[in-house]
Amino acid sequence: MAVTATVPVRDRDDLSLAYTPGVARVCAAIAERPELVHEYTWKSQVVAVVTDGSAVLGLGDIGPEASLPVMEGKAILFKQFGGVDAVPIALDCRDPDEIVETVARLAPSFGGINLEDIAAPRCFEIERKLQERLDIPVFHDDQHGTAVVTLAALRNAARLTGRALADLRVVISGAGAAGVAIAKILLGAGIGDVVVCDRRGIVSADRDDLTSVKRELAELTNGTGLTGSLETALTGADVFVGVSGGTVPEPAVARMAPGAFIFAMANPDPEIHPEVAARHASVVATGRSDFPNQINNVLAFPGIFAGALRVGAKRITESMKLAAAEALAAVVADELAADRVIPSPFDPRVAPAVSAAVAEAARKEAVTR
Amino acid sequence: MAVTATVPVRDRDDLSLAYTPGVARVCAAIAERPELVHEYTWKSQVVAVVTDGSAVLGLGDIGPEASLPVMEGKAILFKQFGGVDAVPIALDCRDPDEIVETVARLAPSFGGINLEDIAAPRCFEIERKLQERLDIPVFHDDQHGTAVVTLAALRNAARLTGRALADLRVVISGAGAAGVAIAKILLGAGIGDVVVCDRRGIVSADRDDLTSVKRELAELTNGTGLTGSLETALTGADVFVGVSGGTVPEPAVARMAPGAFIFAMANPDPEIHPEVAARHASVVATGRSDFPNQINNVLAFPGIFAGALRVGAKRITESMKLAAAEALAAVVADELAADRVIPSPFDPRVAPAVSAAVAEAARKEAVTR
Repeated sequence: MAVTATVPVRDRDDLSLAYTPGVARVCAAIAERPELVHEYTWKSQVVAVVTDGSAVLGLGDIGPEASLPVMEGKAILFKQFGGVDAVPIALDCRDPDEIVETVARLAPSFGGINLEDIAAPRCFEIERKLQERLDIPVFHDDQHGTAVVTLAALRNAARLTGRALADLRVVISGAGAAGVAIAKILLGAGIGDVVVCDRRGIVSADRDDLTSVKRELAELTNGTGLTGSLETALTGADVFVGVSGGTVPEPAVARMAPGAFIFAMANPDPEIHPEVAARHASVVATGRSDFPNQINNVLAFPGIFAGALRVGAKRITESMKLAAAEALAAVVADELAADRVIPSPFDPRVAPAVSAAVAEAARKEAVTR
Repeated sequence: MAVTATVPVRDRDDLSLAYTPGVARVCAAIAERPELVHEYTWKSQVVAVVTDGSAVLGLGDIGPEASLPVMEGKAILFKQFGGVDAVPIALDCRDPDEIVETVARLAPSFGGINLEDIAAPRCFEIERKLQERLDIPVFHDDQHGTAVVTLAALRNAARLTGRALADLRVVISGAGAAGVAIAKILLGAGIGDVVVCDRRGIVSADRDDLTSVKRELAELTNGTGLTGSLETALTGADVFVGVSGGTVPEPAVARMAPGAFIFAMANPDPEIHPEVAARHASVVATGRSDFPNQINNVLAFPGIFAGALRVGAKRITESMKLAAAEALAAVVADELAADRVIPSPFDPRVAPAVSAAVAEAARKEAVTR
């Protein structure tokens, strides 16, 4: 990566303008009218990609320095796909309140905060507290990016097979960052029933080992009060969404309802091999680029931030995420096939469509500055 | 400004490499051998330009957002003159320990910290504590950048007029960030006598109104025990260095020794107009680009960081700063004139010369990783 100047500094006049004494007038103007910072600096076009290195890919807690390659990759994708400048900020601290305090202190320099690879459950607390304090978008991509793309794929799978979202029963394997966010966005989109499973089985209100996040989940989901294992949950289910990193045996998915959708998104090893899954499903998706229907966050975050920054959104709301998923699904709505319920990451229509939908939703909801 | 990718992401293969799953191997390698972070990421080529917005140019305490244009200008100059990537980080906090803690937490992402426009005296404490904690260079440019360029100009003025540094008596007006650093570097370079004045006059050991920084200064400087006003100090002095923002009347500089050097560096209004100063001096310098001999930090910081980063220096030592000043002076040593004791900021020889000298000094002192 590189930082480049978008103005030339060729001679003394340029130098006087870009630096002292010329820059003093720009500073004074912002000091007098603070909102000019968005017009006169790069603040509103640059996102901090913030991590503590505690939940990096499948590698787990490898610390801030070792997480930097992911943050740099993310920054490159922000630019390439969304035209958004992004800067990796890997933090050497772990306490949620310390992370919140640190990010709040450096927020004046940035137009948005993309949280990345922070372990659950503290990722939830950090995102909530930061968004409460800041008037710029705070977005934990491992949660919401994944959730938006999953919903888009699910919408198109339902469209392709003539199903209504309200009629679907969805089983999510994994109650971490992605699992929790997917459960919430699916409920927000009108999915009929959602059951979440963690390593110990179905997240249900009768369990006494739940974190506060999972307790909330138990209340929101599992309307029929199922208890027991993932296999129990899958019996007769319409949709499997895997974000667990575990494996699911073929007999378990064989119990699903006819024409099921199987989204086995663990990386690099899907919960069930897509070819095996295809024996029991009408639509199969994974997180991998070498199988059809890749559920890839890069379909969401560049456009979401581009749209939010463009209209000066102060946060990224549920309706903005739903709008992003709808727009993403619509890109391939006229060319749907079982192996094409979600666009390719390189489809040039994606980011503009997502960005426009997010910007419009932000304006409609009046969450802009 | 913009962040750009230095690698292409054109297809699925590129995407797999720059992002998941390929990036996981890079992360794992760094987790196993932490020093690889310098080779595999942009950490070692990127500097955080950190401010709290408390002492911005002549504008004073205008806060983090309004200071951003200066930090962006600085970042652009870092790139243009030193090839160093730099990112503005304007902090919303003021307590020195909070600033230290915040910068230490985000340091894993950066190869160096350039502190900027932080008010004295807390700038001294912040720099010292940060450098103690971090193994990357921490450099307060308002102090050391100014000091390096001032020393370079003074070396050449002495060379031009056949004077020895040890014979010079220097009066510095201003005991803030720049004044303190200039006093220290001049003493380190072997200047015979240095007297510093603040708003109340000569900083002398008998005063009971001194901050701890000024008490230290009173011990280091003013070997002859002068007391009284700036005018008293100037009587018979060889060099005036103004970094005060105040004004000095012509009769005061008229009392200086014959052939004096007058460096009136306040911006935008020099302590004494250079044409008036020229009546009483053999060499005149200012901080402005529209008069000869501009003492401009841009002559120092890009090359200093470029050299320090290139060899993996863990700090920027006194000998590295002295080497920078010597190299900067040497650029125009063969073409000296009263209006040319310091190179132009656009002299293409400057940054390579400073960078090479700093790198060599760091290696010689063995402060590299």
